[in-house]
Amino acid sequence: MAELHPVCAPLAFLLGTWQGTGAGIYPTIEDFSYIEEASFAHVGKPFVAYGQKTRDADTGLPLHAEAGYLRPQGDGRVELVLVQPSGIVELLEGTVEGSTVQLASTAVLGTASAKPVTATERRIWLDGDVLRSSVAMAAVGRELQHHVVSEMYRLS
Amino acid sequence: MAELHPVCAPLAFLLGTWQGTGAGIYPTIEDFSYIEEASFAHVGKPFVAYGQKTRDADTGLPLHAEAGYLRPQGDGRVELVLVQPSGIVELLEGTVEGSTVQLASTAVLGTASAKPVTATERRIWLDGDVLRSSVAMAAVGRELQHHVVSEMYRLS
Repeated sequence: MAELHPVCAPLAFLLGTWQGTGAGIYPTIEDFSYIEEASFAHVGKPFVAYGQKTRDADTGLPLHAEAGYLRPQGDGRVELVLVQPSGIVELLEGTVEGSTVQLASTAVLGTASAKPVTATERRIWLDGDVLRSSVAMAAVGRELQHHVVSEMYRLS
Repeated sequence: MAELHPVCAPLAFLLGTWQGTGAGIYPTIEDFSYIEEASFAHVGKPFVAYGQKTRDADTGLPLHAEAGYLRPQGDGRVELVLVQPSGIVELLEGTVEGSTVQLASTAVLGTASAKPVTATERRIWLDGDVLRSSVAMAAVGRELQHHVVSEMYRLS
């Protein structure tokens, strides 16, 4: 195992694999609930690799997934670059303060066949031994609003 | 194991894990050689998840990584959305013909701290039992030109 890059120290609380449940809403779709597994890993370089997958809580079928990299800047600022199988990429900037990472998109782009997403806000925070994650999204012409929230427990 | 989504059938030759070696050049850096491992996976939905990591051929230390999703469009066209720990996201469009996927960027974006990359072209093709991969890149003010090429063999 490589030693954690010092710039990643403020994100050390994220490292590992987490599993739990979440719930999603948006005015254009039915409410839904899901099982989530997320991982945060490092290789000794100044970033943390992030991956996440969700499954439908009722059917077990795969729902969402995303992958990306957190780039701490050494001064409390954090960048996140993110990709989703729906054909969306996101660039986000924000901060890590204590056990809370708070990010807002500076750019969201989609391929020709992707649904239009124009902005997101993301928050990941450790609350006791629960890792909580929430996403607000502006999509399909709607303004930025709460979309999903989950709570996960450490698997490893 | 989920059944492969029919739209992914033209990309079935990629599915699995591959390992091999590669070489990189660019006018602004020293030539380098690397060990690469790449994987292509599906969950029954109309995309193929892609991930790749490289290590320095001499030191074994991690070099590059990227993650993304191939989105076949059912008519020979393919989209690729991609994220890199260097703070870069790419949207690419292209085609799959026989055992060759050929893609060109429609957008490349970087975070505030990322090195400027403005365009890429990517090719992945199966040559007998060798999976070959090449990337051309326009970065740090240079025009689009060959950057890396690798050859990998199937691990699983």
